Amino acid sequence: MLDFVFHNATKIIFGKGTEDRTGRELSKYSKKVLLHYGGGSIKRTGLYDRIIKSLSEAGVEAIELGGVKPNPRLSLVREGIDLCRKHKIEAILAVGGGSVIDSAKAIGIGVPYEGDVWDFYKGRQVEKMLPLGVVLTIPAAGSESSGGSVITNEDGLYKRAANSVCMRPVFAVMNPELTFTLPAYQTAVGAVDIMSHVLERYFTNAKEVDFTDRLCEATLRTMIVNTPIALKEPENYDARAEIMWASTIAHNDLLGTGRLADWATHGIEHELSAIYDIAHGGGLAIIWSAWMKYVYKHDVKRFAQFASRVWNVEPDFRNLERTALEGIEKTKSFFSSLGIPVTLTEAGISSDRFEEMASKATERGPLGNFVKLNREDVREIYKLAL
Amino acid sequence: MLDFVFHNATKIIFGKGTEDRTGRELSKYSKKVLLHYGGGSIKRTGLYDRIIKSLSEAGVEAIELGGVKPNPRLSLVREGIDLCRKHKIEAILAVGGGSVIDSAKAIGIGVPYEGDVWDFYKGRQVEKMLPLGVVLTIPAAGSESSGGSVITNEDGLYKRAANSVCMRPVFAVMNPELTFTLPAYQTAVGAVDIMSHVLERYFTNAKEVDFTDRLCEATLRTMIVNTPIALKEPENYDARAEIMWASTIAHNDLLGTGRLADWATHGIEHELSAIYDIAHGGGLAIIWSAWMKYVYKHDVKRFAQFASRVWNVEPDFRNLERTALEGIEKTKSFFSSLGIPVTLTEAGISSDRFEEMASKATERGPLGNFVKLNREDVREIYKLAL
Repeated sequence: MLDFVFHNATKIIFGKGTEDRTGRELSKYSKKVLLHYGGGSIKRTGLYDRIIKSLSEAGVEAIELGGVKPNPRLSLVREGIDLCRKHKIEAILAVGGGSVIDSAKAIGIGVPYEGDVWDFYKGRQVEKMLPLGVVLTIPAAGSESSGGSVITNEDGLYKRAANSVCMRPVFAVMNPELTFTLPAYQTAVGAVDIMSHVLERYFTNAKEVDFTDRLCEATLRTMIVNTPIALKEPENYDARAEIMWASTIAHNDLLGTGRLADWATHGIEHELSAIYDIAHGGGLAIIWSAWMKYVYKHDVKRFAQFASRVWNVEPDFRNLERTALEGIEKTKSFFSSLGIPVTLTEAGISSDRFEEMASKATERGPLGNFVKLNREDVREIYKLAL
Repeated sequence: MLDFVFHNATKIIFGKGTEDRTGRELSKYSKKVLLHYGGGSIKRTGLYDRIIKSLSEAGVEAIELGGVKPNPRLSLVREGIDLCRKHKIEAILAVGGGSVIDSAKAIGIGVPYEGDVWDFYKGRQVEKMLPLGVVLTIPAAGSESSGGSVITNEDGLYKRAANSVCMRPVFAVMNPELTFTLPAYQTAVGAVDIMSHVLERYFTNAKEVDFTDRLCEATLRTMIVNTPIALKEPENYDARAEIMWASTIAHNDLLGTGRLADWATHGIEHELSAIYDIAHGGGLAIIWSAWMKYVYKHDVKRFAQFASRVWNVEPDFRNLERTALEGIEKTKSFFSSLGIPVTLTEAGISSDRFEEMASKATERGPLGNFVKLNREDVREIYKLAL
């Protein structure tokens, strides 16, 4: 087990009707906030009205900035920073999924910084963020208690991440009922995103990480059992609740304690969704089995453990490679069973821009920690994903 | 899944040599602290000197109060409160295991309170505690990131708990190497204590708690695999590290999210260790299988799941009761395999004071949530434990 620091102070307020507590929680930080959200869905569902009522009852004034899109853009972040400065806003409320929260984080670190906020996405260390509260509507990105934010810079379609412990939200309101109306596609790609956060941490070279292995496997099993239920019964509270809580734990850094995570698959996927604007989870569903097939020989036993404990594959001890491969196949067919494309071909993406994507993905050096991948490796993985 | 709030801001600093960072962490809170510890073991091992050096390098002055004993006493707590007030101390450093930390918490809540600190252990809500840092030397109680403290009042030998989110330490330094010198007995009863924190949460009537069930099972499996290794190889860093990290997660409230925990076994045990002054984990090892045998019919399927997933018992679907009973038997024989008594008789305790203990345990009402236990039930469980 590697040495680590784990510090996650996000207060989770989980359950039915919890959005009504938003104003009271937020008023501990400021009486004037930026209310950040995406499209019109929170207005259609009535969530917007309930949030406004809760803020108003707590005496919190809200300046609004909607319009966050999937793969959130730097231009809107800059707009949000200007708005906060103009109105002397000291806290932010993000109502939405990962894109809204990531955009809110970017605004929150940009406001107290004199330079260009993109600096943080080019590697500058973040030291300060406005207090950020979250009302989560899509369980997927885990951004509601993570210290990360991913932003797309339209100038060249770069998708980059900033990370810092000070970028964790101060609180997250999580009502599984808010996810009842998610379209099946979004439920499916959200599930892939959640499982991806676990998989990135699971495939590590750190030795003797028994406890976190088991926590990872428990989280993956939860997703495997509950995602099909939520797809069949969108208003099944319990399945939605299991998924929502798993989405947070998958990415609050607990599962990565004592181990070095990989993150190559995320890097390979980011180039896909930056260029083709497909959902992040949709891209991950395509890349995972290709990545696994490309690297599994690096640690066949770990892949056999994955197959056995996560997918209930009976280990073939005469041929653990067969067991490993069966686990990879099960991963792919599970993602496929969620009704989403699991190859580039199925997603209508051809090999035209593989060279460009592979170059961009590796322009800051090789990807991954489990196996280091250079440009040629990444290109091969795109090919395997066809 | 039940609604919940989860908020755990304790910063965990985990790994080799991390005690050297104590002074720097602590100096964020105060330059004058109470250094609270137990007997002479931290002096024999050199830990005391390293802590003093770290404090001094960070410019932190320490007023000392040693002498905490297992089942920490109210009289020493009162002494600590007086000492803090006299020296205008604003933060506490606990170096030790659960007893030292619990004693430090009691001092920390007593100092800012005008009344008698025992009020909190009689049910008064805690609202404030001096910032508390921890250097953990015994993985067992989970007090390093829990909001609980258990104190024994010598006046009648009452052992009572106080709980509040504000009673979580601000940081915990956890170096598994510090546990290399733990005697086998303490390693064993510590493991039982850790597993008990999971078991208390596992046996719940909350329906649809799939994710936390699996996290509980992962934690129990980790303990089952690693405790025998640590007993055979006391200086096996990896096994010690798995146990130490599991001890924190077992009791930081994550595993109890969305479910109502039981706590009857703790209540039944507390009367044992209050009177006989045996180790808390030692008492728990004796009570668990008796409690399980007394209540398993309340939810045979949950006990069968426990047997199957935690103990790898092949479920007998024609007779799940048989599976359930096999899981209970496995629990008892595992505890026994750690080299500790698993019956009252083995521990040299007779039935003499069963009535008195059963009365005291239930004087504030029935124990437990999974099954409510009154005085007669508790007496029967003591009998089953003979």
